[in-house]
Parts: sequence; structure tokens; C-alpha cells
Amino acid sequence: MVVQPDPVEALLTTYNELNPSVIEELHEEPSPLEFMRYVARNTPFVVRNGASDWNATRTWTADYLRDFLRQHKVNVAVTPEGNADCPTLHPDGKLVFAKPWEEDQPFPEFLDYLQRQELDRSEFQSSEIRYAQTQNDNLRHEYVSLFDQVQRDIPFARIALEKEPDAINMWIGNSHSVTAMHLDNYENIYVQIQGQKHFVLLPPHCHPCVNKKPLPPATYARSRDGENLELIMDHSANGDEVPDVPFAIWDPDCPEENATQYSKLAQPMRVTLNKGDMLYLPAMWYHKVSQSCSEEGICVAVNYWYDMDFSGPLFPLASFVRSVTVPHEIPE
Amino acid sequence: MVVQPDPVEALLTTYNELNPSVIEELHEEPSPLEFMRYVARNTPFVVRNGASDWNATRTWTADYLRDFLRQHKVNVAVTPEGNADCPTLHPDGKLVFAKPWEEDQPFPEFLDYLQRQELDRSEFQSSEIRYAQTQNDNLRHEYVSLFDQVQRDIPFARIALEKEPDAINMWIGNSHSVTAMHLDNYENIYVQIQGQKHFVLLPPHCHPCVNKKPLPPATYARSRDGENLELIMDHSANGDEVPDVPFAIWDPDCPEENATQYSKLAQPMRVTLNKGDMLYLPAMWYHKVSQSCSEEGICVAVNYWYDMDFSGPLFPLASFVRSVTVPHEIPE
Repeated sequence: MVVQPDPVEALLTTYNELNPSVIEELHEEPSPLEFMRYVARNTPFVVRNGASDWNATRTWTADYLRDFLRQHKVNVAVTPEGNADCPTLHPDGKLVFAKPWEEDQPFPEFLDYLQRQELDRSEFQSSEIRYAQTQNDNLRHEYVSLFDQVQRDIPFARIALEKEPDAINMWIGNSHSVTAMHLDNYENIYVQIQGQKHFVLLPPHCHPCVNKKPLPPATYARSRDGENLELIMDHSANGDEVPDVPFAIWDPDCPEENATQYSKLAQPMRVTLNKGDMLYLPAMWYHKVSQSCSEEGICVAVNYWYDMDFSGPLFPLASFVRSVTVPHEIPE
Repeated sequence: MVVQPDPVEALLTTYNELNPSVIEELHEEPSPLEFMRYVARNTPFVVRNGASDWNATRTWTADYLRDFLRQHKVNVAVTPEGNADCPTLHPDGKLVFAKPWEEDQPFPEFLDYLQRQELDRSEFQSSEIRYAQTQNDNLRHEYVSLFDQVQRDIPFARIALEKEPDAINMWIGNSHSVTAMHLDNYENIYVQIQGQKHFVLLPPHCHPCVNKKPLPPATYARSRDGENLELIMDHSANGDEVPDVPFAIWDPDCPEENATQYSKLAQPMRVTLNKGDMLYLPAMWYHKVSQSCSEEGICVAVNYWYDMDFSGPLFPLASFVRSVTVPHEIPE
């Protein structure tokens, strides 16, 4: 008698056998056709120094940014532990999806805080963490005055995908912020301007490994005296229940915790972006992102989101894996 | 309480909502980049008149072929009903996978038979059906003397896929042969030279619709007097059981017969290739192919098989759908 293999186990091991878990490194930008081959395989790559000739990688020092944006206020995500949009243990003991306190801060004050916290850790041991991480096309709005120092788009992606970027975002933070593992329905080109980003990547079919759970949402609020951040459960104005947020609670960097029976079959792909490096993060790949700072104590990156193509087999098939293996979740 | 949709039903309907069931028609060959976009979406297209300037579409008349190959013997698949490699009811009542009797015939004799059977149906009412359908790179071997009248490869495919064709095959038959619905792990470029081919296409995730069953294999054998074809169950020399052949028994042209609960959700894509048309049949698409003849009573086509890319998500995900929904079958 033939023993039937577990289909999910077969899916994960088949993919692992057919695909490297080490990212491909290019040393110049791909042509549109070369890029399209990666899109077809839904496979990441990094272009080392792909953006090292951009003005921003020369000009965007802390002093320059502080001066250039001295009149600006920026929207800042504030958390006690750098855990914006992250599964977090609520003081009452239950795991919640923690959203940051958001406030506008004068840009120079925000930047000073990032740098002092990074460079003089003793002074800031139990302080809050700040991260400018709005993802609302901020480089063409909030920071538009800086936009001419990066590329208006990524030509190989625009030509291959036949579309303009849907959003271009700047990210400014320090090493205390971590973006928890999640996925976006976008083709993503990520460009490092200052410091480093450390990515941990998993392909879309790894739903059964990441242990997605429906987490009740909660949001940090600054206390009246401004000293403390309190995590308050979300509630609607009319008292209706707020829907849970399905979110991965397995962290490939703590693989023993919150694991599913399949987590051990995930083969995370790890890549560090240095200043001037460019990453292609394919649509629907899970990514966890942490960061290191430049000598000035900041980490700055820019990303270009291109709408993914929902036609073809990938979106329905990845949704199928999710609905078969995470039965409590209804895919959008 | 939210009712969970059936994941397989959701897969099929999501795909249908996001993808047209009508094939895209081009009027000139795509560039390699344009082709790669179709490969990325695993989506067929037809190029109307894409090969109408090939020598073969002018020169390969019946008379020309008969004369050019007058010294050749060709391998011919012989069946009673045009059912080579097809689910067939065995006289003892069980459904089997019927393989053709194969024999070498002088090419002129083979061609005469095809034409006379097609053009004078009364004479041939209960006669056997013949089809030259070897798929062993025959245009670079058996028929190599004709090879310089077609393209050596399909440039847009060679450049995009970065490989030479794995096999180039010629197919010669008449309207009595039908190729039953099956799939190949190849990117396929199909070119009509004489007559018409009628394709019915289903994407790879339609495994749950096609009702694959393990069929015992059987092969036609010509009786000693040469008059009859008898369907004989395969058996191994040492008496071991011959493994069943998993094969689709649902036919989109007879949708009520042998249907699964999901067959009605399949949206077959239909396309007829006329002389000079070129079809991109993406890897792992199910296809059923029937044919009509030119005025001379023959149907001639050529196809180019390019190895598919097993890396990336499509192969493991399509295999996953198969193993979840066709549990008796172990994907290779």
C-alpha cells in the first residue's frame, strides 16, 4: 500500500526542492524582459548598488534632511517597543494586533530623537520608538519636495508591467523599529538610501507555516501627561464589535514559538540591503523587516509599489492554499 | 455565523471572475517581453496568420508531401474510432485507457488513406482511423527533410524562455481523429499548416473539474488477417500488474457525462486554428483537440515544445490542487 503524503507537506517540500532559498544577486538593473522572468517565477532578487548613482544616496544625510524639511511636520508612528502593526501581548494577557499611536511632529525634532536614541542608547533605554512609516504615496505628497532626488519610477518595472507606480513611499526610522511579517498585494521595488534593512522572506504558499490568527485590534494612545503609551482595545462608535485582524504570529527568527506543524518546512530567504541596493519583493511574499542605521543614526529607504496582476493563476491558487489550510479565514 | 465557502468552488469562481474565458487574439507575433507577460499569467493567445508567411503553409499540399516523402515510412497510430490515448469502454464493460496500434506505413499509402477516408466517407464508414502523431521531435528526425520549410524555432519564445525547443513535432491526420483532454508539462507553440484544429482549453487548476480516474491501460492490436483491431489489456512480461493511468474522463463537449460536482464551474476556452494561425498553449493547460481538413482532405500541424520552468509557484501549487482534490492520485 502506498502511503499518501500530506498534500501541504508535499507542497512545501516540492517548492523547496525546485527553488533556491538564497536570493539571486544581480550587479546591474535587469532589462524589462529579464525582470518579467522574475515576475513570472514570483522570485525575488537584489541588485547590489542598483541605486548608488541616485542623488538621494549622496544627498540624504541627516543634516540635509533636517534642513530641507525644517518647516515640515511628519506623521510619526509611536510605540513602546518598535512594534507598530505587530502581534503584541496585551497587559490583560491576550494577544492583540497592536497599532501605533500616530502624531504629527516637527521633522527636525523627529530626526533628532531618532539619532540621539540610536547613538546614545543609555539615555533612551525605556523610551518610546518612533518611525515615519506612512505608506500613502508620501514621496509624491508629504515629502514631495525631495522627490526629484530619487527616480520617478523604476523603468524596468514600468516597462515590463506596463504601469506607473501606485505609491512611492519613504521610510525613516532607527534600529528599534521592526516591521512584523506580513504580505502586500503589490509588486514591490525597495531601495536602500541610508543604513541597512534586513529582510526575512517567505513565498506566498507559506500560509500554513506562518500561523495566521484572528487578532483583536488595539491601538496605542499617549497618556494626557505625554509620558506613557497605553494599549487600548479598538471599539466602534456604536458599540459594535470590531472585526479581528488575521495576522501571522509565527516569527522565523523565533522558530520554536507559535509554530504550526508546517513551520519547520519553511525556508526563509534572508537578505540585507546596503546603501544603494535595490530589492525586488514579489507580490504576496511574506516579509519581516528590521533595520540598522548609518553612522548618523538613521535608516532611510524608499519603495515603489506596482499593482499586482490578479489575473492568471497565482492569486487564486495562493488564496486556495490559505482557505484550505487556514479554515477560519475567508480570503478577501 | 458566516458560512465558509467551499475552497475548491472559491478557487474556480475567483479565477473565472479575474480571467476572460475568451482567448486573446493577436495579429502579429508578440515581442519576447510581450510573450513573457503571457507566460507570467499562464494565459493562452492566438496569433492570427502568425505563420502565414512560412514556406510550409504554401508548399505542404497533399501532392507535394506525397511526392517529397514517397520513399518514407511513417509511424501511424491506428484505432477503430480515432481514439488514440483516450478513455474507452472495453468490450467487457470497463473503462480503460486505450492506446493505439502502431505500425509503419509507406507515406504515400498513409496519405492516400487519409484523403480517401475524408473525401469519400461512404466507402470508409466502418474503417479504422489513422493518425501520424509521434511526438518524438519527429520534424528533426523522421521528417527532417521537411524541416527547412518551417521555422527552426519560435524566436519570441526562444528569447523569452532562454532555451531551444525540446521537441518539434508534425501531426498529420484527418477529421476522424480526436486527441482526448490531457495536459503536458511544456510551454507549447502550435502552428496550423493545413486544415483546422479545434481546441478546448482549461487552466491547470481545473483538476477538480476533469474527473481524473486511474484507468487500466489497454492497447489495440491488429488481427492476423489485418481486418480487425482488438483492444487488449496491457500486461507485463512477468505477469506483474500494470499500473493504472490517471486520466481525465470528463469531456467539456459532453458536460453532463462523467461530471464532478465542480465540472459545471469550468469555463472552457475554445479556439479554432486556421491555416497559418499560431497558438500559445501555456504549460499544464488541459487541451482537447479535434480537427477539420483542407479541401484536399488532410490536416497538418506543427508544434514546438519548450521545457516549462518548474521553479516558481505554479507547478507546486497546481500539484497541490491535484493532491487535495484527487486524493487517489500521487502527483509525479
